[in-house]
Amino acid sequence: MGFALGENHWTTKLSYTTENGIQIRGYDLGLLIGTVPFPSVLYLLFTGELPSPNIAKLIDAIMVASIDHGPGAPSVLAARTAASGGATLGAAAAAGLLTLGKFHGAAVQDAMEAIQGVAELARNGSGLDSAADAVVAEWRGAGRRLSGFGHRQHKRQDPRLARLFELAREANVFGSYLAAARAIEAALKRNTGKELPINIDGAVAAILCEIGFPVSLSNALFMVARLTSILAHANEELTEMPPMRRIDPVDHSYTGPAARDLS
Amino acid sequence: MGFALGENHWTTKLSYTTENGIQIRGYDLGLLIGTVPFPSVLYLLFTGELPSPNIAKLIDAIMVASIDHGPGAPSVLAARTAASGGATLGAAAAAGLLTLGKFHGAAVQDAMEAIQGVAELARNGSGLDSAADAVVAEWRGAGRRLSGFGHRQHKRQDPRLARLFELAREANVFGSYLAAARAIEAALKRNTGKELPINIDGAVAAILCEIGFPVSLSNALFMVARLTSILAHANEELTEMPPMRRIDPVDHSYTGPAARDLS
Amino acid sequence: MGFALGENHWTTKLSYTTENGIQIRGYDLGLLIGTVPFPSVLYLLFTGELPSPNIAKLIDAIMVASIDHGPGAPSVLAARTAASGGATLGAAAAAGLLTLGKFHGAAVQDAMEAIQGVAELARNGSGLDSAADAVVAEWRGAGRRLSGFGHRQHKRQDPRLARLFELAREANVFGSYLAAARAIEAALKRNTGKELPINIDGAVAAILCEIGFPVSLSNALFMVARLTSILAHANEELTEMPPMRRIDPVDHSYTGPAARDLS
Amino acid sequence: MGFALGENHWTTKLSYTTENGIQIRGYDLGLLIGTVPFPSVLYLLFTGELPSPNIAKLIDAIMVASIDHGPGAPSVLAARTAASGGATLGAAAAAGLLTLGKFHGAAVQDAMEAIQGVAELARNGSGLDSAADAVVAEWRGAGRRLSGFGHRQHKRQDPRLARLFELAREANVFGSYLAAARAIEAALKRNTGKELPINIDGAVAAILCEIGFPVSLSNALFMVARLTSILAHANEELTEMPPMRRIDPVDHSYTGPAARDLS
Repeated sequence: MGFALGENHWTTKLSYTTENGIQIRGYDLGLLIGTVPFPSVLYLLFTGELPSPNIAKLIDAIMVASIDHGPGAPSVLAARTAASGGATLGAAAAAGLLTLGKFHGAAVQDAMEAIQGVAELARNGSGLDSAADAVVAEWRGAGRRLSGFGHRQHKRQDPRLARLFELAREANVFGSYLAAARAIEAALKRNTGKELPINIDGAVAAILCEIGFPVSLSNALFMVARLTSILAHANEELTEMPPMRRIDPVDHSYTGPAARDLS
Repeated sequence: MGFALGENHWTTKLSYTTENGIQIRGYDLGLLIGTVPFPSVLYLLFTGELPSPNIAKLIDAIMVASIDHGPGAPSVLAARTAASGGATLGAAAAAGLLTLGKFHGAAVQDAMEAIQGVAELARNGSGLDSAADAVVAEWRGAGRRLSGFGHRQHKRQDPRLARLFELAREANVFGSYLAAARAIEAALKRNTGKELPINIDGAVAAILCEIGFPVSLSNALFMVARLTSILAHANEELTEMPPMRRIDPVDHSYTGPAARDLS
Repeated sequence: MGFALGENHWTTKLSYTTENGIQIRGYDLGLLIGTVPFPSVLYLLFTGELPSPNIAKLIDAIMVASIDHGPGAPSVLAARTAASGGATLGAAAAAGLLTLGKFHGAAVQDAMEAIQGVAELARNGSGLDSAADAVVAEWRGAGRRLSGFGHRQHKRQDPRLARLFELAREANVFGSYLAAARAIEAALKRNTGKELPINIDGAVAAILCEIGFPVSLSNALFMVARLTSILAHANEELTEMPPMRRIDPVDHSYTGPAARDLS
Repeated sequence: MGFALGENHWTTKLSYTTENGIQIRGYDLGLLIGTVPFPSVLYLLFTGELPSPNIAKLIDAIMVASIDHGPGAPSVLAARTAASGGATLGAAAAAGLLTLGKFHGAAVQDAMEAIQGVAELARNGSGLDSAADAVVAEWRGAGRRLSGFGHRQHKRQDPRLARLFELAREANVFGSYLAAARAIEAALKRNTGKELPINIDGAVAAILCEIGFPVSLSNALFMVARLTSILAHANEELTEMPPMRRIDPVDHSYTGPAARDLS
């Protein structure tokens, strides 16, 4: 089956191991432990550099905002269904992860593309409003769903938004991309007559544009965060539910701790 | 197909959504964003309570220690193989996650069981050494691999250990479970003649025992952390490699930034 | 990273490719195409030999019997949920496949173990009935669910059974394992007071025992067959349904062709 | 959480179950068992009708041709990697299935599109050769890989092709789509100077075009067939190999039965 040693040699810019250590993007992992918070080491792996303190705070906030969306989220239902059939925790989680497709969860990337499109047109001299009208027309013409705007459940105001925008303002990353997102919101109302407010995907997309996060990894950030709730729900299914349940997507209620404040 | 409304009603203790918010274990998610770090919100979802500052720091440290083990890790190779065949980023990540089975990565749970077994015997009056001898004999008798001790590559000292133990000492969670882990290490040497030092799984297991982390979710903690590197490597494969590669598990090298210090 | 060529050399008994052909268990794949039916080539790959005509017919029949169990099957619901979130057809199918765990679908292996246990005890001189009583007692004592007996929906008679048993009789493989399965059915009634008739998993298990099919691959046979309906349902979801549906596990109906006969 | 019964009611054209039976596309599954071969019931589920005898034979042949491509196939390597990490058989198979993406295996659909494009242009009056030139130019212009032509390993003649084409001729489905595939082969040589003969994906694509098989399910047919070898290889890994192997994609050899003839 003749092949030469080295014919299949390949390289990576991410990490390597030696007998004495693990190196991530040039940093010794041993030095990062307990010194740099987990979301910042994720940022390092994804982008190649450690974040500034402001950006570190925003990445952490976005991950918290993305961690869970309740027991009716499709990814949770798929993971519970697999667990209920007898899958291991890891296999159930994989079934959930596979559900974070184009429509559920993986919308941040699309929203980043739309927002960057508007910002670029505006930079090139279009007024912001006509830039947004142009992008909205283009996406509607292509039959493409403009992710990041409107939400089935939180029709008026997604509860996570005010907080994310407040943090973005504090971090001083509240510039042209957030303006572009607001311009799309207005253009959608002008063009469709409907209120389609920025939703969590749109807000995250705008902030990720502001901090220059790589578009191709925006959904990856969401997946790491959301895997947490997929695992928590799958574990509850495995440890507290009878097997082979018919899992109703809406007919469920919450029996955990009552509402409480951060002390 | 007669069924009554409510027949399939079910409950969860984890979270729920309303038109105005998302509640996690009783806390409003909007209040957690930017206030409580991501690893602590993960801890909340997994255990039901927010961690103390000491425990929060240890959970973060364990997640950083687990984030990546280089390009030759089986989970990374599986994810790159799927990506190379044309899978999307999410599907490639799921293939990687499925690789975190009993032997690769999911060993923390086994190690927790062994350590708890030794600690319990010792509490009941056995000397610590004979407790460890008993558990080692039991596992070897059952043909069960004692995860958490010994490492193919880091034969002398896993580089992440010293740091984790230092943090555990600082957090004052350095008690009977860490002693039990050391006792197993010694018992393995007495019984097999081999040096099988505590490895990263064993260290994480001992610390998780100390802080009372649920055994059934120990691997879940690892999965969230490690998904990060699975995604980073799969993304590198998708964006920088030709399709349909024959991915050699050992013949690769690192071309990223040179060794550098935290400034 | 010093390693010697050949250090990781490994072998397989299944197949290999050359520039001029693909060899499966010693047979040229080119010769099998159009000559040996697909279920028989599957049997060759799984067991190492081509089946006799009688066994070939039974394997085909078992695969047809396993192909689909309607839109409410957990594997179908998980695949549709993933598809509805925007997964590709292959990723949705993987989510469905992950649902074929210990409880849903993967029960044939357990049933084979119970049936082989009874047959062995009976061969060693126990009467068949007391052998079945012993195995039932052992499984109940271990808190282990005796798969292969009883069915949520087809309470009286699983509709696929009569046909499978008829074919087994025609193929002259109607011996001690089918008798053992009937003995377990009777023992369950004696011991629990409930009617728990042999179900499809039990019937398939008994026939696979009769023909000496490898226990570890019994679920694999089911998975190949059932992947068919998982894909058909996922494709219907992708091509005919709106995205992000809340997929009710029971509130659905059939709108396909009316009942018709084989002409 | 107000919702009305029936709000989420949905329908399927595929199948349903009752207390006394399972109906597939209007046929009672009990009647299909032992009467209609598995590949034909797959065809029924996928297309809505049972195949004619000629088409039934071709579907079976295509599934046999697709069943395995040796131990170095990416899907097999991913499944073995997952199994080696401790995944269950089903979870390992899912990892393999996820590898059957755009480049590996899922190429039949692309090839069907190219072949249909050429046939349609030719039907509309272009000569066949200029139709093929046009489609080749269009795909190369779009930077799109023309799947179905050329093969890394079987450079001269894919061994499965002659047989498939012979069967297509016997079944009298050897018409305009096979001519279109040959025209693309010639156009590729004219335009690239390289020999890029029709490969297995291209041959399967041409035959599926001839028999009117739905394009969106062509990869599904391949997935069911190929899952067979994914499971066989994963099972070999689980039952005969040590855990945590470094699985070399090329340094392996075959130790199964020697070459033998169909008797």
